[in-house]
Amino acid sequence: MDLTTDYIHQAVKINNLDISSMIVDLTSGGKMLRPAFFLLFSDFGEKKRSTAELIPLAASLEILHVATLIHDDVIDDSPLRRSQPTIHTKYGRRNAIYAGDYLFTLYFELISRNLSSHIDILRNALSMKKILVGELDQMLINFNVKATTEMYLHEISGKTAELFSLSAAMGAVVSDGNQELIDRCKGIGHDIGMAFQIIDDILDFSNSTQTGKPIHEDLKNGVYSLPYILGLEAGNEQLIEVLSKTDLTADDDLKATNIVVDDGYLNQAKDIARSYTKRAVDEIDKLPKNTNQKILKAVVKKLINRIK
Amino acid sequence: MDLTTDYIHQAVKINNLDISSMIVDLTSGGKMLRPAFFLLFSDFGEKKRSTAELIPLAASLEILHVATLIHDDVIDDSPLRRSQPTIHTKYGRRNAIYAGDYLFTLYFELISRNLSSHIDILRNALSMKKILVGELDQMLINFNVKATTEMYLHEISGKTAELFSLSAAMGAVVSDGNQELIDRCKGIGHDIGMAFQIIDDILDFSNSTQTGKPIHEDLKNGVYSLPYILGLEAGNEQLIEVLSKTDLTADDDLKATNIVVDDGYLNQAKDIARSYTKRAVDEIDKLPKNTNQKILKAVVKKLINRIK
Repeated sequence: MDLTTDYIHQAVKINNLDISSMIVDLTSGGKMLRPAFFLLFSDFGEKKRSTAELIPLAASLEILHVATLIHDDVIDDSPLRRSQPTIHTKYGRRNAIYAGDYLFTLYFELISRNLSSHIDILRNALSMKKILVGELDQMLINFNVKATTEMYLHEISGKTAELFSLSAAMGAVVSDGNQELIDRCKGIGHDIGMAFQIIDDILDFSNSTQTGKPIHEDLKNGVYSLPYILGLEAGNEQLIEVLSKTDLTADDDLKATNIVVDDGYLNQAKDIARSYTKRAVDEIDKLPKNTNQKILKAVVKKLINRIK
Repeated sequence: MDLTTDYIHQAVKINNLDISSMIVDLTSGGKMLRPAFFLLFSDFGEKKRSTAELIPLAASLEILHVATLIHDDVIDDSPLRRSQPTIHTKYGRRNAIYAGDYLFTLYFELISRNLSSHIDILRNALSMKKILVGELDQMLINFNVKATTEMYLHEISGKTAELFSLSAAMGAVVSDGNQELIDRCKGIGHDIGMAFQIIDDILDFSNSTQTGKPIHEDLKNGVYSLPYILGLEAGNEQLIEVLSKTDLTADDDLKATNIVVDDGYLNQAKDIARSYTKRAVDEIDKLPKNTNQKILKAVVKKLINRIK
């Protein structure tokens, strides 16, 4: 991970010092989950790649992720990211948008330089389209009390799972895995990503409930996470009534929260997360037995245990 | 051009109908200069490509161009583009930023699908980095009365000339041109792009002067085009004094305009545009003699005659 971080810091250097330093800031201190999964999945095919071959690809995945974060923050006008002021807050929207564009470009550049012998994966890599369409689909859910679980799952499938899926598939490809292995890794990556996003939503829900924040910010902005959507889809009239209001108060928030917990929608969401991790673990069992396989399994179990 | 437009409209279709239709709007009614130059330059190498092979690449260049326009409009908060409301005005910033990202992706997808046998040009294509760094460099000039011609030329070299250069080089590559031809086309494209941007600046300057707009909007926003920069660089004290003011009035604008015209800076800018087109024409003369060569020469001459 340290080598990957160093590589990213070298790669993002441009003449404009301000922009360089803000990108370096943002590519530090992240959890680097996508590079980590890529590296874990790069050990199941025929070919062992050197660290020098793997690092640029690991870096490219984090760079792509950060590009989407920068644009997301501009769009949501978020003041903080990873406890630091966001780029647009510090350097203005212009720099933030271009910095994101620049990182998108850098991703494609790294891929084309380091995966040119696997040009086909480059096209797979361009499931990027799905990522962006996922983001656009979010609108269909926002402030929509008729949002369904299917719509939500489709959205996070693009927004989050696709990049995990890409990271896993790229690992399989670079290790010269056959099509069966690539497809399996892709599926595992997808399921991990789906579980990751649902668990993140659940933790966000529980944290802000516990820390007594006056209101769930997302809810106020019409961004419904899975626990709420399960309630809406079940036709829970009280919940629909509360969320149909135009400007939610702290009281409304508390009401919605209680409904989601008391009527079991939070637990239903947990069950859905569990079913994704279960399928992921089952498929990991079918991968070649080696150290990375064990680590992967442990990581996925740790992930789901966060919402025990 | 019609085939290219149709291809673009097919390619940008996504499930989200609103977004699709706004992208279709924006990819209609443009001058399609970059696809046109690409097609003109695709006739000088060994290999004749079919229309079916050329159109997706021509389309990719317009798509890339539109992606940068969408993001530029968000950044500058411009209300109109091609006489239509801009995407962020009509559909909000979220959609505009993602639509731009989506088109960037589509560009890379089209290139990777249709130029995979020339993977190296894909990396050249990624001179995209220069485009974005050019945009970021614009900050160095804004509200900077110490801006120099060199800084300005460096900026437009990235912002505008790079994409013209790419269009021309891609034409040479796809026709299996040798390295000498590719380099020549790249250079011609660059010079055409430089001339195009300077001429555009000059026309903007003259138009708003003639139409009696109360003030040059760009000037008010600290965006200095070449005529002003030539005056600033020459150390014209009156001009420096006017542009150093914090909030320009219509009177200040008139004063600055008169200085730029009377002291010959506008003519100097025209001379610089002419020197770029002259070099372009000289190099076009060295291309294989065919119909496209003649058209190219005519187009470049028509371009420079706009500021006679």
